[in-house]
Amino acid sequence: MSIQLTILGCHSATPRNNAHPTSQFLEINERHFLIDCGEGTQTLLRKNKIQFAKIRHIFISHLHGDHFYGLIGLIATFGLLNREHDLHIYGPKGIKEIITLQIKLCKSWTKFSLIFHELNGTESTVVFEDKKVIVRTIPLDHRIYTNGYLFQEKEGPRKLNMEKIQLNPEIQVCDYHNLKKGKNFIATNGAEIPNEKLTLPPKKPASYAFCSDTAFLPEIVSLLKEVDLLYHEATFLETEKSLAKKTKHSTAKEAATIAKEAQVGQLIIGHYSNRYKDLTPFQKEAEEIFSNTHLAQTGKMFSIG
Amino acid sequence: MSIQLTILGCHSATPRNNAHPTSQFLEINERHFLIDCGEGTQTLLRKNKIQFAKIRHIFISHLHGDHFYGLIGLIATFGLLNREHDLHIYGPKGIKEIITLQIKLCKSWTKFSLIFHELNGTESTVVFEDKKVIVRTIPLDHRIYTNGYLFQEKEGPRKLNMEKIQLNPEIQVCDYHNLKKGKNFIATNGAEIPNEKLTLPPKKPASYAFCSDTAFLPEIVSLLKEVDLLYHEATFLETEKSLAKKTKHSTAKEAATIAKEAQVGQLIIGHYSNRYKDLTPFQKEAEEIFSNTHLAQTGKMFSIG
Repeated sequence: MSIQLTILGCHSATPRNNAHPTSQFLEINERHFLIDCGEGTQTLLRKNKIQFAKIRHIFISHLHGDHFYGLIGLIATFGLLNREHDLHIYGPKGIKEIITLQIKLCKSWTKFSLIFHELNGTESTVVFEDKKVIVRTIPLDHRIYTNGYLFQEKEGPRKLNMEKIQLNPEIQVCDYHNLKKGKNFIATNGAEIPNEKLTLPPKKPASYAFCSDTAFLPEIVSLLKEVDLLYHEATFLETEKSLAKKTKHSTAKEAATIAKEAQVGQLIIGHYSNRYKDLTPFQKEAEEIFSNTHLAQTGKMFSIG
Repeated sequence: MSIQLTILGCHSATPRNNAHPTSQFLEINERHFLIDCGEGTQTLLRKNKIQFAKIRHIFISHLHGDHFYGLIGLIATFGLLNREHDLHIYGPKGIKEIITLQIKLCKSWTKFSLIFHELNGTESTVVFEDKKVIVRTIPLDHRIYTNGYLFQEKEGPRKLNMEKIQLNPEIQVCDYHNLKKGKNFIATNGAEIPNEKLTLPPKKPASYAFCSDTAFLPEIVSLLKEVDLLYHEATFLETEKSLAKKTKHSTAKEAATIAKEAQVGQLIIGHYSNRYKDLTPFQKEAEEIFSNTHLAQTGKMFSIG
């Protein structure tokens, strides 16, 4: 599985018994990320049987409470669980001060390193990169400084075309590594067989984009082009469009419009306002624009590849 | 009912699905107080159908996360609910900085006034007083600066002794007010009837003491003398006494010893370490010292008078 996304919380504003604020757990190409961390996230991680130790990187979109009030508690719990691994936290400038002030006043310094990556840029930037995954910000338009995040697998090795390879007895298992890396094969007589005659293109890298919270912002479409999975907030329905505009949120229709324009694979919507008891109108409104739309729901999982 | 206490959360350290960190809702003589506010408190208030607007005063014992990480979220929710009433917060020095920093960075200033009463004294002090209730600190002994709180009804008016009053036709309904206030009755012939011949003593004022977190501290007994209801933390059993000492917590036996020495009416124990799956040994250990012991449990209510 290239990507597995678990929705922990997907409602806006105040936590309620069955409406948890935003948080998501993402597995992508063997990396594990927590995205946003509303109050109660650590309890939802337990409910969904997600091992705390897997989380090495936490991405916070913005400093509204329903996206980060659970962070300090999660860090404290990591401490109580005797965590040793570094924890990287990506989020708006100010997040370091909030967390360290509380740690200082609680006299509960962690034994593991807390590494903050504070953001204040307004252009998309790479914030994480290793040999398997790259993560960039998606600058959004909300009441306070906010970023979405684009998670992309890196292109893997080329795949061996065994049918072709077996026709040439000179090619040994020890040559496979170079073939996967794209090198041509040199026969003992000096003849060069082009790599593309012996291999197939690598699997298309999977990608996931998280966009919350934001007003309708067509400028992000170019960043989201053909992502496999897009989460886009849909706090309101079109009937409350003026409220969406005033509070810098999106409607289901607007989220679907972004998905359609960016030609994404699937759309997930969430961050529903607590005013809506029935969520089916969200599905209906979005589907009219973009048919492959799914409603976020606590505990729901989405997989790619 | 003079006192009604609702246990919201009563476990220590990390929140789990069915083990919530400390918070309690107290009604005493028509006043409503929230005591401690661990992560998830606002959801527990909703589950227990407690109206948010009733809460005018929040008392925080200390700045360990399991006692206050839910506070910023509750304040944010009060804001979203368009609260107008002042909110008074009592707690250790530093609590104002933690809350206001987050409000500032979230750009979510409340329309209602937030009034902080920061504490740093080491002697018992009156922190709240009106005509019905008085609240004092109970300095405790924990790893960081910690106070318990003693909530006491003020003595009410004397009760009319109707049997005696009805024997004297000169006493009218309009005289009752003065009689309740303790004044003597002056007959038309100038004779003075002593108040205690016409009234009965007022109802004994009820009291509740909250003591969490603390090492065994016999010095608090004098403050707790004959309170009707005592909550005293019991994080450990005697089998983990050395751990209790090291972490400055109490065992069930120690909590019961305080209750016995102070001759309280009832004892509630809680703040159980997550290491214990079965809580009955807590009840058993405490009962051997003080029989009227109850285990705190989410949603459990205790009433006096």
